[in-house]
Amino acid sequence: MQKPSIPKGTRDFGPAQVARRQHIFNVIRRTFESFGFAPLETPTLENLSVLTGKYGDEGDQLLFKVLNSGDFAKDVTVADVEIGSKALLPKVAEKGLRYDLTVPFARYVAMNRGTLTFPFKRYQMQPVWRADRPQRGRYREFYQCDADVVGTDSLLCEAEIVLMTAQVLNGLGLHDFTIKINHRGVLRNIYQALGGEGRESDLFVAIDKLDKIGRDGVTKELQERGFSEPTIDTLFELLTVAGSDEEKLERLLAGFVTAGVEPDGARPGTEETTEGPANYRGLTELATVRDLLQASGFKQFDRLEFDPTLARGLSYYTGCIFEVKINNVLMGSVSGGGRYDNLTGSFGLPGVSGVGFSFGVDRLYDCLEALDLFTDTAETPTRCLITHFDVASGRAALPLLAQLRAAGIPSELYPDVSKLQKQFKYADAKGIPLVIILGPEELAAGVAKIKIMKSGEEKVLPLAEVVQSLTAE
Amino acid sequence: MQKPSIPKGTRDFGPAQVARRQHIFNVIRRTFESFGFAPLETPTLENLSVLTGKYGDEGDQLLFKVLNSGDFAKDVTVADVEIGSKALLPKVAEKGLRYDLTVPFARYVAMNRGTLTFPFKRYQMQPVWRADRPQRGRYREFYQCDADVVGTDSLLCEAEIVLMTAQVLNGLGLHDFTIKINHRGVLRNIYQALGGEGRESDLFVAIDKLDKIGRDGVTKELQERGFSEPTIDTLFELLTVAGSDEEKLERLLAGFVTAGVEPDGARPGTEETTEGPANYRGLTELATVRDLLQASGFKQFDRLEFDPTLARGLSYYTGCIFEVKINNVLMGSVSGGGRYDNLTGSFGLPGVSGVGFSFGVDRLYDCLEALDLFTDTAETPTRCLITHFDVASGRAALPLLAQLRAAGIPSELYPDVSKLQKQFKYADAKGIPLVIILGPEELAAGVAKIKIMKSGEEKVLPLAEVVQSLTAE
Repeated sequence: MQKPSIPKGTRDFGPAQVARRQHIFNVIRRTFESFGFAPLETPTLENLSVLTGKYGDEGDQLLFKVLNSGDFAKDVTVADVEIGSKALLPKVAEKGLRYDLTVPFARYVAMNRGTLTFPFKRYQMQPVWRADRPQRGRYREFYQCDADVVGTDSLLCEAEIVLMTAQVLNGLGLHDFTIKINHRGVLRNIYQALGGEGRESDLFVAIDKLDKIGRDGVTKELQERGFSEPTIDTLFELLTVAGSDEEKLERLLAGFVTAGVEPDGARPGTEETTEGPANYRGLTELATVRDLLQASGFKQFDRLEFDPTLARGLSYYTGCIFEVKINNVLMGSVSGGGRYDNLTGSFGLPGVSGVGFSFGVDRLYDCLEALDLFTDTAETPTRCLITHFDVASGRAALPLLAQLRAAGIPSELYPDVSKLQKQFKYADAKGIPLVIILGPEELAAGVAKIKIMKSGEEKVLPLAEVVQSLTAE
Repeated sequence: MQKPSIPKGTRDFGPAQVARRQHIFNVIRRTFESFGFAPLETPTLENLSVLTGKYGDEGDQLLFKVLNSGDFAKDVTVADVEIGSKALLPKVAEKGLRYDLTVPFARYVAMNRGTLTFPFKRYQMQPVWRADRPQRGRYREFYQCDADVVGTDSLLCEAEIVLMTAQVLNGLGLHDFTIKINHRGVLRNIYQALGGEGRESDLFVAIDKLDKIGRDGVTKELQERGFSEPTIDTLFELLTVAGSDEEKLERLLAGFVTAGVEPDGARPGTEETTEGPANYRGLTELATVRDLLQASGFKQFDRLEFDPTLARGLSYYTGCIFEVKINNVLMGSVSGGGRYDNLTGSFGLPGVSGVGFSFGVDRLYDCLEALDLFTDTAETPTRCLITHFDVASGRAALPLLAQLRAAGIPSELYPDVSKLQKQFKYADAKGIPLVIILGPEELAAGVAKIKIMKSGEEKVLPLAEVVQSLTAE
């Protein structure tokens, strides 16, 4: 006799959990669709030739690989075994599990370039798999919800990412959030303001760790990598400019001008950006995004924070970058994204600019649970259970059951002839709010007794009025 | 430069396809929920110890197996390579992809027996993977939608499977369908009526092929397996009883009595079944299901067909069995199911009776497409595109854009400054039904021009009335 289990890092979702997760998906889907994003779904299995090399060496390690079907070992030689996994892998596996939604999206755009209409706005809500060490809040199978636009440079897309993020979080009741925004151009200008000392990527890697290792840690790391003390001081002066977001933009502008940083200009095609001495691409684009938000009636500027220390790792971003935290919950970011300029390049389609962002549903779920914001805990969609006493009263309940369902009230008849107490216990355990009692007495009188489980309140109604009374509530 | 592709037997679903598939899922979900089924989701990855041996030898071959992470080949020896895949498999893979929804469900029930309230009604809509040879209508990744009840013997569950099947198909507009119903007990009684000649399983296997190889083919196969000609004649007399379903039930009853088949009685606990000489379990249960459908107000008895030749393979079914075909479409069954008495036995939880059925979403999709029943072909959820002429008119459109979205009308502003023609082409290619033209002239006059793309009709409205006018439609 086998004791069943599930692989570590994976989860079953019971009825109440699925209902809560569906609620999150629905809020995100409604928001994405109201902004004109269309759904895309890609296969769980992708060719390893598509996945490998896209996520760095560590990512390649974390890919789940799928054994070829049939006689998978037919090409494996004794020499391969002596070398080990590295030699075996290409012989036994050519497919892997989806690791994120971005690479499959880029693959889809490249494969369908001839038929897609650009700008192409897609959203995608599907699970991804990573052979990471499981821990609190980190799973081996988890959902991502991505929205991306490719084929336009317009900063309206960046502004709409802020609008959508706020709409989703407000829609979930997570009102206390911070959307951090920065721009890769700002980081580049900061590096230039330091006089181009050291390596740019070393600087970004160190800044990215500021959250975790603090100013002292970053200082130490930069010193080890050859940055001088005055340079590091200048760096923190720029990174920690104080004031409102407008003031930070102005102060950084002044800092760049003072340091003699060459203006890098607006991107071609972005007429929105202003010309002149203020013409640092990062700063002007951030200012434009704020302006477009203002024009769109955005009211939550207190939840938007220009954070020059936001770096988002060494990823493919080239323009604005975003990261979202729920305040007062111990939890990493629940959303992030940014603009990239060459996502589809590795699939033979260069020069397609895009911008996108992603929600982590599992983290949103954990935040909502930590803040006790889930209201519904029912283990069933059933609103109404009909109880009965014997075969005859059970059969007599069937027309009422059909009427309730036709009226849009999910309903059940307890399927077995059982003690009333057992039937009530069933309703209670599943969180069914209404119980209708239909016994021989009620049937003889042409009535039904309705019990509201929460209050214990009971009322007796003519059978013909039951459905109307329940739909009116 | 890499030319990207997806694995054979898998598919990308673009916006229009996802929207159509969502429509199918929604109809199924609403139906399942209105009957009190609660959602369950299980992991994509299951331990091979859970999956292996549950689907027969062929099934084990078709399981997708996932390579262990890290140094997967560390325990592989030269001797393993000499034996081949069979020796390698247990050393390199301990997980596989979900092959159906039934085994994970049984695993879940067995694992959570202590906390679940029975009867437990669950539905599950998730993809499954099979390393089958891909062909028309057969994919390596496809969705199943299952609903099962475990922990009750009540035949109300069987009746509700018929009700739900009809509700889903009617809801999809697939009105011309046939729900075939049979009972494993009827097949057993037919075998007994033949005098117990040959092997019971040989008989079922042969009957199961009747659809494909016809009466002659089945006759030949049975002869080869040692069944005599008179026996085979009696078999076809019983299998092809004519008349209405009630008449078939009566005629089989007479046949069983004449052949001296020992009544096998009603199942304990099913008070609904009648006693006496008619006490063959299969026939009485089928009659009871009809009676419960009648009492529930079921109106489509012309789409329900008692078919004594329905066998549903050699599966774990023990009671009623179902299979559903859409008429006038060349397509296998779109749904099937039945009662089983020992689903969770192999996971250490014996004696749990259950009944369930499953929809094949990919086949339903293909039927709807073949019958041209999909109405919406838009490549986007967007209902309204705002076009503009320059940066200023684009910016001025943002408040209207926000109002449209707030009113529940998915809307977009064309993100770039482009020729009007290009913006209209975008709306046309994506199937966006409404285009609002907001140029400098319109802005100066405080109006917007609205064009209905299908008819070409245009109207000019004051800006303040646009949203109200569109929501009223």
